[in-house]
Amino acid sequence: MDKQITLYAAKICPYTQRVEIALSEARAEYTRFEIDLQNKPAWFQPQVNPESKVPTIAYGGPPVPPSQPSPESVKITESLVLLEFVADLFPQSRILSSDPVERAKTRFFIDFFSTRVAPPHVAALLRGESFEPLIRGLLGFQELLSKEGMYAMGDQFSIADIAVAPFILRLETAVTNELGVYEPGEGTKFWSCYQSHPKFERLRRYAAALKERESVKSTYDSEYIKNAYSKRFEMFKAQRKVAAAATAA
Amino acid sequence: MDKQITLYAAKICPYTQRVEIALSEARAEYTRFEIDLQNKPAWFQPQVNPESKVPTIAYGGPPVPPSQPSPESVKITESLVLLEFVADLFPQSRILSSDPVERAKTRFFIDFFSTRVAPPHVAALLRGESFEPLIRGLLGFQELLSKEGMYAMGDQFSIADIAVAPFILRLETAVTNELGVYEPGEGTKFWSCYQSHPKFERLRRYAAALKERESVKSTYDSEYIKNAYSKRFEMFKAQRKVAAAATAA
Repeated sequence: MDKQITLYAAKICPYTQRVEIALSEARAEYTRFEIDLQNKPAWFQPQVNPESKVPTIAYGGPPVPPSQPSPESVKITESLVLLEFVADLFPQSRILSSDPVERAKTRFFIDFFSTRVAPPHVAALLRGESFEPLIRGLLGFQELLSKEGMYAMGDQFSIADIAVAPFILRLETAVTNELGVYEPGEGTKFWSCYQSHPKFERLRRYAAALKERESVKSTYDSEYIKNAYSKRFEMFKAQRKVAAAATAA
Repeated sequence: MDKQITLYAAKICPYTQRVEIALSEARAEYTRFEIDLQNKPAWFQPQVNPESKVPTIAYGGPPVPPSQPSPESVKITESLVLLEFVADLFPQSRILSSDPVERAKTRFFIDFFSTRVAPPHVAALLRGESFEPLIRGLLGFQELLSKEGMYAMGDQFSIADIAVAPFILRLETAVTNELGVYEPGEGTKFWSCYQSHPKFERLRRYAAALKERESVKSTYDSEYIKNAYSKRFEMFKAQRKVAAAATAA
């Protein structure tokens, strides 16, 4: 590996953490540059990502400071594209099997999570919708976890786990601190069901294994997320109040 | 390649056609089994796909008739997972580059199409919403096409083209026959803009190249799609009338 890797990142963002976990698993050398999502640098959108999104990797090109990105580096975005990219660049990381059937199962797992768990997760936290669809999504998702192995696909940690871990961690931080746009008490109610009900046994064991993984631990700062979520949700709630008042008027 | 491949398919379904094009490009031997989506065989959901969806591939296991699937074959579903699976099984097909950066660009292209073009396409045809978001999506998508090459990523036909072709073909068949839930005349209006406006020049050239590709041609029967869409949209329109009458009552 000669080519340089610069990751444009935001600590609050679960999609960013996915890429950080993958790079950590690959023991890749890279430069991390934090983007303040509320106050993005002027060069970011024109020079790094036309859609102004993190995570983005600038790959290759001459050695430059991250704040002066070179037009010669390739800019790659979308977290799931980046997970495959890291797996392709660093096959020795074994975060994606070389067996076609295992690869397909891993990708199906990620697709299931993206379409069945992530949307109701966002709906509950950011739009205050019922936790019921999230519970159903998590139960369906749980069925796809390896029965005996530590991780999603067995005992080998993979991009399936990497895609999921940032969301599992943030969900715990959010609901145990009642952070979200939902009615007060709903977070605690969801969490106590999740923590105590036997139907979530496999999922709890899986979440515990994810939290113990060094690459996951070292890229997650729960105090930071708690504070960042707290500020973000206060802002969301204020915006919703203004919108509701405008509708009523 | 020793293991058998059975594709559970539906001729109307663009996701199925994706997999058929990929298998054709790979010159794979496989058994195709048509599923009548309006009247699925009772064994399909329990024995092939718990969600009763096409396309699904049954891979490996003993030689069995498709209508008696073996529990020993692996069942793989989701068309984009299947495109990667075919690319992994048949690297000599070259439908996915072996270069990590090219692979990432190809996957980003597919992600862009899936999130920016496919949803407004469905919204216009199946929900009668404005064609404007579809036009914007197509223009953004066009920017990602290789400037000089025949295909999306250059002169090499790839899973980027395979993911897109079934939708481009069906869009033409639908709007040129005014098939869809939109107001009569809207399809023709969209099509004449698309056909004549210089801003769509690159996209038209691309669509023409896709239509000429043998694997695309041999898996698309425009008369069949025209008739199937005609029936389907009549049914949709009737359902919408019933729903509207119920709301009004």
